[in-house]
Amino acid sequence: MPRRSITSFSNPAIKALRSLREKKHRQRERRFLAEGLRLLTDARESGRVPETLVMAERRDPHPLLDALERAVEETGGEVIETTPAILSKITGKDNPQGVAGAFVEWDTGLDAIDRKAAPIWLVAQALRDPGNLGTMLRTGDAVGAGGLILIDDCADPFGVEAVRASMGAIFTQQLARTRWKDFVPWLRAHEGAQLVAASLRDAVPYRGAPYAAPCFVLVGNESQGLPQAYEDACDLRVTMPMKGRADSLNAAVAAAVLAYEVLASIE
Amino acid sequence: MPRRSITSFSNPAIKALRSLREKKHRQRERRFLAEGLRLLTDARESGRVPETLVMAERRDPHPLLDALERAVEETGGEVIETTPAILSKITGKDNPQGVAGAFVEWDTGLDAIDRKAAPIWLVAQALRDPGNLGTMLRTGDAVGAGGLILIDDCADPFGVEAVRASMGAIFTQQLARTRWKDFVPWLRAHEGAQLVAASLRDAVPYRGAPYAAPCFVLVGNESQGLPQAYEDACDLRVTMPMKGRADSLNAAVAAAVLAYEVLASIE
Repeated sequence: MPRRSITSFSNPAIKALRSLREKKHRQRERRFLAEGLRLLTDARESGRVPETLVMAERRDPHPLLDALERAVEETGGEVIETTPAILSKITGKDNPQGVAGAFVEWDTGLDAIDRKAAPIWLVAQALRDPGNLGTMLRTGDAVGAGGLILIDDCADPFGVEAVRASMGAIFTQQLARTRWKDFVPWLRAHEGAQLVAASLRDAVPYRGAPYAAPCFVLVGNESQGLPQAYEDACDLRVTMPMKGRADSLNAAVAAAVLAYEVLASIE
Repeated sequence: MPRRSITSFSNPAIKALRSLREKKHRQRERRFLAEGLRLLTDARESGRVPETLVMAERRDPHPLLDALERAVEETGGEVIETTPAILSKITGKDNPQGVAGAFVEWDTGLDAIDRKAAPIWLVAQALRDPGNLGTMLRTGDAVGAGGLILIDDCADPFGVEAVRASMGAIFTQQLARTRWKDFVPWLRAHEGAQLVAASLRDAVPYRGAPYAAPCFVLVGNESQGLPQAYEDACDLRVTMPMKGRADSLNAAVAAAVLAYEVLASIE
């Protein structure tokens, strides 16, 4: 497909790209946006090539941008050149990074998870903050987790804010969206999986707890925490020191402190 | 001062409160907003009473709200009753929590820090994301840190998003805003302070590193990291496992993983 130059805000292709910033359009189109040369290069090197690549006119040349263009063209995608102002509208940023891409969402059923692929998995229950989801993906990449499993009604991991916070891990971490009632039988279908949650009840100190791979680290909703029945279903409940007035950490922080402890324990 | 009922969006008192959502107005007025009964109660119990308390009409009665009203009246502050729609405009939230307060900012010079008050201090350099600042305050509360020191051009810790993410720790953690050139002499004016940073250069594993109290845990800007000269000035550079493609963690996550390790080491 030849490359197109578009300079009108009202062009249908531009409108379609912009609409992907809204959840309802993303869900209907099953496509999402990512921006910036680094993120798009992470995607390409992970085998994810955008269906549509949008670049600012008169951008600086860059070998990674050339590689991206070639990959898009080789996979039958479309390359659009446009103005910085239109790119800014698409990404919702005042200073867009010169390039953005629209990707086809991939399958996020539990079948997408190969549990043997890694010793640690992160699990988020009803997490509402997309920044927290993206940060958990990023942390998962860092600790060598296999991916992120989203339980119940979570924020959209393909939203612009989550993708941005993931710093590319949305393209490298496996991702599943499911319900608790489906997750538990899936988890228990194979022996040896350990489900761990931070908890205030009936818990052992998180440091030196008997973690075992594959370890599934579960964190709950930002304001409600985990339902008690979910905590009860865990193999291990651990508690972290809380020296101050508050009784909980930010969800993504709790996941990270716990995941790093698991990593140190099982290595 | 008697309580007032205000039902007009254009009332000057309402406009003044709304304006505190913008940094330039906060800085001029040296006042900031916090919302929600829990946050305002944390503030009150920490000795911080709002100058102005705004409540929704026909709210549910609550003993903590009564205590808040009394505290405001006793300290000569003002209580305003208004509509949920106006409260929503003030807080910028679709579903405001029924109560908000405007506080006078306090001194944030380095003199505000009593380094003997705690074994851990968090230090952020040029952190631009207010959510990260708030999350660091919250983590600081959890690990028993004394407070947060902001170096160079950081986001505003009194912004609505930072205050919200701090979950009340803005009122309990000490807070200073300074420059690197002033911070280092202050730090070195007393013996024994240890400055620690996560680094990729010339670093030891973060786990089991020789931490010592008072330990100042330093994290750098979200995209640039710390300047090399700042890393060089540290007493200890530590590195965390990075098993994936990325070479860094979210700044607030890095601070938390490191701070919990310091806590385990010095206790």
